[in-house]
Amino acid sequence: MKSTQIRLASRPKGEPVASDFETVEVDLPDLAEGQVALRTIYLSLDPYMRGRMSDARSYASPVEIGGVITGGTVCQVAASRNPRFAEGDYVLSMSGWQSAEVVDGKGLRKLDPADAPISTAVGVLGMPGLTAYVGLLDIGQPKPGETVLVSAASGAVGSVVGQLAKIKGARAVGVAGSAEKVAFVKEELGFDACVSHRSESLKEDLAAVCPNGVDVYFENVGGATLDAALSRMNPFGRIPVCGMISLYNATSLADGPSRASLMRQILTDRLHVQGFIVTERWDRFGAFVKEVGGYIRSGELKYREDIVEGLENAPRTFMGLLKGENFGKQLIRVGEDPTRA
Amino acid sequence: MKSTQIRLASRPKGEPVASDFETVEVDLPDLAEGQVALRTIYLSLDPYMRGRMSDARSYASPVEIGGVITGGTVCQVAASRNPRFAEGDYVLSMSGWQSAEVVDGKGLRKLDPADAPISTAVGVLGMPGLTAYVGLLDIGQPKPGETVLVSAASGAVGSVVGQLAKIKGARAVGVAGSAEKVAFVKEELGFDACVSHRSESLKEDLAAVCPNGVDVYFENVGGATLDAALSRMNPFGRIPVCGMISLYNATSLADGPSRASLMRQILTDRLHVQGFIVTERWDRFGAFVKEVGGYIRSGELKYREDIVEGLENAPRTFMGLLKGENFGKQLIRVGEDPTRA
Repeated sequence: MKSTQIRLASRPKGEPVASDFETVEVDLPDLAEGQVALRTIYLSLDPYMRGRMSDARSYASPVEIGGVITGGTVCQVAASRNPRFAEGDYVLSMSGWQSAEVVDGKGLRKLDPADAPISTAVGVLGMPGLTAYVGLLDIGQPKPGETVLVSAASGAVGSVVGQLAKIKGARAVGVAGSAEKVAFVKEELGFDACVSHRSESLKEDLAAVCPNGVDVYFENVGGATLDAALSRMNPFGRIPVCGMISLYNATSLADGPSRASLMRQILTDRLHVQGFIVTERWDRFGAFVKEVGGYIRSGELKYREDIVEGLENAPRTFMGLLKGENFGKQLIRVGEDPTRA
Repeated sequence: MKSTQIRLASRPKGEPVASDFETVEVDLPDLAEGQVALRTIYLSLDPYMRGRMSDARSYASPVEIGGVITGGTVCQVAASRNPRFAEGDYVLSMSGWQSAEVVDGKGLRKLDPADAPISTAVGVLGMPGLTAYVGLLDIGQPKPGETVLVSAASGAVGSVVGQLAKIKGARAVGVAGSAEKVAFVKEELGFDACVSHRSESLKEDLAAVCPNGVDVYFENVGGATLDAALSRMNPFGRIPVCGMISLYNATSLADGPSRASLMRQILTDRLHVQGFIVTERWDRFGAFVKEVGGYIRSGELKYREDIVEGLENAPRTFMGLLKGENFGKQLIRVGEDPTRA
């Protein structure tokens, strides 16, 4: 059995370019006792991967040069010498950017296609969904009637944040990157309002749709969207800091508004700003999947996937993801999905 | 009865100067039914007053031009037509920068000199002490063995923060502004270590005394001390933001480290940064005064007062306070203290 792997050829400086990636075909070893061969169906692309390509100090170790790039995957068991897994089983894995892998079965989670589409295990019912759940409910703690603002509102995390906010009785306001996304966020996802971060009057646009200010700003992007959000924060506002996609390709963090201005506002407005990493919050997974799985089945919570065919398109698609070119949860279909035949 | 009042003559630009203050003598009215005449013994000087002299948007309304400057005071009842107060009673008041006042008795709290020296009602057992208590215990939440760093460590708030941290089983490290203060913080207050913020190697000095990093940084000052603290924060560190004295005289907040660098660190290190205002935390006063009052009586918690004689010296002393020229809780003795005769 062969695997096509996309490896990190060099650490990107600023935006990743094609030459930062290399594609290699390898022969997988025969299965030893206890091992499982996996065939990748879906590879999840997520902004955090940009951090793993860098060797700047962070909460997780970087991918080594020459290493397969990290990533959550939905796989099918192609062969098994492990009694816990049978050929044909669907599993959630961290196989990364490759088409097949031999593993010992530890850390795999079986997926039942009858519960939910298997692709949701890396999306609305997986890491992005849990990120939204923990950041909004555990840190943001919205109260009924409050206003929740979320950036990247049509994305895998933001779309869940806003819809959960609505379910909890809050007002949901999104920021997204195109007229089409803005319309989707309002009309399909049911947010109360959505504005475009490409507008030159973003602050004014936001003021118009947040007449009572912002109580929770779920931070995914940084930059101008953060400027606008801070201009509307209410006293005692909460800012769960989930990511800052606008910085991921930055080669310097020295420009822009000053730290002092932010610290002064944190004091004056008694803000609560807190960073979190979803991988440290797996203790909440059971509660999350029970609650959000219910909303998915009842149709109360919608999700959108942006599926690109072919592992070879992962680098280009990832570069686009960092610029907001995706529309919904970004997936690469690496191999056939028999459940959607 | 006359009162000498210090009023705000003009809003300071940057550091306050003498001409921003004016001294006026007024005749107080005769007492109406229910009124009380107060003679000021101690006026508390606190950094927050600089904010009240400015009309920048803040959590509290500014002092009007021509208005008596706000301030907590310990007063004695000089005459009373209110059945709740007798001549000679000591009370905690918000009389501000003046030597006497006629009030209706609402909001006054009687002080018993047998409980604690009356001056402590505006210090270690008053607003500054409660600030330390709420910021450290409710927001910072130090665990035994963790390291708590506090700026302005010899001051009214910082000295309580560090000693409370010790009592709770944490390591206490201070930052102070002179060799004399550093020695006091270590030898008298019993902090595990203290460094000077005037050192050119502040970051290295701090690293040397915080070998296991910093878990709670109690922020009073901003600027270079914040730089150094951030360079040592541990993952999941907490930063209660109580004040930023280094900014209070700033005419611009545009310079210095960028907001993006702070936001990135909040995310990467999963920091919890939270502003708070003690006047919104009076619900904790009962618990505070019971617990900290006990530590004062048992001698576990020490405090130091810096008492300047004469209301006329309040402006000059206040200007010095903003530069760290005080040594301990800054008080102005406006009138005789019969309990210290």
